[in-house]
Formats: sequence, structure tokens, C-alpha cells
Amino acid sequence: MWFNTPGRRAFINITPQVEACLRESGVEEGLALVNAMHITASVFINDDEQGLHSDYDKWLEKLAPHAPTSQYLHNRTGEDNADAHMKRQVMGREVVVAITGGKLDFGPWEQIFYGEFDGGRRKRALIKIIGE
Amino acid sequence: MWFNTPGRRAFINITPQVEACLRESGVEEGLALVNAMHITASVFINDDEQGLHSDYDKWLEKLAPHAPTSQYLHNRTGEDNADAHMKRQVMGREVVVAITGGKLDFGPWEQIFYGEFDGGRRKRALIKIIGE
Amino acid sequence: MWFNTPGRRAFINITPQVEACLRESGVEEGLALVNAMHITASVFINDDEQGLHSDYDKWLEKLAPHAPTSQYLHNRTGEDNADAHMKRQVMGREVVVAITGGKLDFGPWEQIFYGEFDGGRRKRALIKIIGE
Repeated sequence: MWFNTPGRRAFINITPQVEACLRESGVEEGLALVNAMHITASVFINDDEQGLHSDYDKWLEKLAPHAPTSQYLHNRTGEDNADAHMKRQVMGREVVVAITGGKLDFGPWEQIFYGEFDGGRRKRALIKIIGE
Repeated sequence: MWFNTPGRRAFINITPQVEACLRESGVEEGLALVNAMHITASVFINDDEQGLHSDYDKWLEKLAPHAPTSQYLHNRTGEDNADAHMKRQVMGREVVVAITGGKLDFGPWEQIFYGEFDGGRRKRALIKIIGE
Repeated sequence: MWFNTPGRRAFINITPQVEACLRESGVEEGLALVNAMHITASVFINDDEQGLHSDYDKWLEKLAPHAPTSQYLHNRTGEDNADAHMKRQVMGREVVVAITGGKLDFGPWEQIFYGEFDGGRRKRALIKIIGE
């Protein structure tokens, strides 16, 4: 699954794509792994509520500020995205979701998001489904 | 698995329940997924030591303070639990545990906890066991 | 898999060991779980870049300072590693990686690390591979 995110940071609901893959697989009982393939991005499960996403953005910027970029040794490699590597660790790389009766076995409000912390490049998530 | 947590925040050791499910499943080799079904709660693995749990509680409150609730846009929806959505991301949604010889393949001190950050409602965790 | 880390904190690239296990297993399609067996250590996926690892070290020390050790109740048990229990939660306990065509299905730059936050003792990571 490929993404283009216009700004530096974005949260994209990818639940419909994961459900489509699951239907295609025909798996009834098993596990679905969904992970970011980039180390400045996350896949996580939370609420699809815009206010919350703004809160996450502000909170992550407080925990791991982007500027001044010179505070991070990693940025001496020519990058300016060291903060994105930290934000990704707080939010996580992957989720593993139970599949029961051919569906994602979700609680109320659970939705899968791709969280981009260093956008503007083409990015990818991986969906792997195992079971029978 | 259902819970009622009396206060707003609590850590509950659910290892015995996961072990009971595993025995019932008869699986000898495989993986166990245990996840919170609520987006203001966590399932995580750490030490069953009360002092540490108090430390976690205080530390999470420092990283993502509950008050003032007006600092979070999410709370304009009528909720007051935006901080709980953040605490949950730090502690994680789920754990995946190896099953070897019909047992949870644990290191010393590993115990599974349900971490509640917005209690007082009925909550649920999911246990999914795959293997043979 | 056993480790000895000389200092208190260290990041060790364990990707070659995981790949060796995968080859030995002969699994072509499935999932690999890699987790720390110690509750003051992490297994995580990120970039193999030394500047970034120094940045992580400094950043984690800011989020959960080691000293003064008296700020943590857990340290009254005779330990001085409460901060390591917190750093481990930020970085995570485990990773689950897709196996496709007999290989770890990685994006560019993804490498698996063992992160030690309370070193000087013998430590272990677990690798569990399922699939066919």
C-alpha cells in the first residue's frame, strides 16, 4: 500500500484498505499484521477524531521537538528528521489485529491509522494476513 | 474478558486469565495476541511490583497531564479523557507472546497487565491464540 | 539469544541473528516475533545510524531520568533501574515482522535492535517464527 502525504505530518485512516485485503485473503481465523515500512512513520490504532489527532500532533512535538534541528546528532547526516524517528517510537511501528469470523475483531472506536512524521516522500505500509 | 475498574487509573495482572485460555486452546506452539479493545487502555508486559506501578502512574501523568482538560481539542467533544489516549500510546495497545511447549514463553518477571487510563466504564481485553 | 552489554545502556543490531534463525526454520510465509525477555530492555526497529542512537539515549534520559534514583518508589526495593522500566515502554518490548518468500519483509533502512537500559547482567531475546 502506497501513500503520498502532502505536509510533514499526517494521520490517515487505512482501516478500509486492511478490510479489503482481509476479504481478498478469505482468511476466517488468524492474525493481521499492519506495519509502516518507513522508520519515521507509525501504524497505530486509535479514535478517528480530528481534535484528538491535532492533540497527538501537538503532544508529540512537545515530547520530541523538530526544532532546533541542530539538537540531534542524526541531523548531521544531512537529514532534518531525527524528531520523526522519536515520534514514531512513541506511536509504534505496527499493530497486530485478531481476525474472527472473517472480520477484524475490533472494540468500539478502534480504527487503524498510518501516522506520517516526515512526509513529502512516497511511503508504504505492509499488510500480512495469516490464518485459515 | 471483561473488567470493571473502580478509579480512573489501574493496572490489573491478567496473566492467569491468559494462561487459562491457553490451556483451554490446547495450542502447543504458536503465538498469543492480547490487546485492549478500548482506545484509552493498554495491554503491556512488565513487573508486578506496586512501587513501579505508582511510578508509571506519576510518570505518565507528567508526560500527558489530565488537567487542565481544556488544553486538548478532543475534550471539546464532551469527553475529558484526551490524556488517556496519549498514555495508552506510550504503554501500547497489545502484546504478542510466544507459546512454546504449551506455555507462555516468558523471561523472568514478565507478567501481562491491563492498564486502564479512563476507568469507571465496563472494559474488555481480547485474547487470540493461534498455532497447533 | 544471549547478550552481555558492558555499559548501562546499549543498542545492538540483531538483524543477522534473526535472519539466521529464519533460514534455519525454512519458513517461507509467516510471521517472526522478536521480543526482549527482560523488562528493562526493548526490541525495536529503526535505523542503524550511530548519531540517531545517541539521540535516542539522550531523549529517553530526558523523558525518564535515571537520577535522582530516589524519585521512584520502585527503587526502594533495592533496585536503581526504575527509569529503565519506563524507557523500555517508550521503545517497546517486541516487534512482529512479516516473512515473505523466505525473507524478512522489510522497508528501506529497517533493522532490528536490542535496546538495553539496565545492562551489566546477562540478557536474552526470544525469536519465534511461525508459518510454512
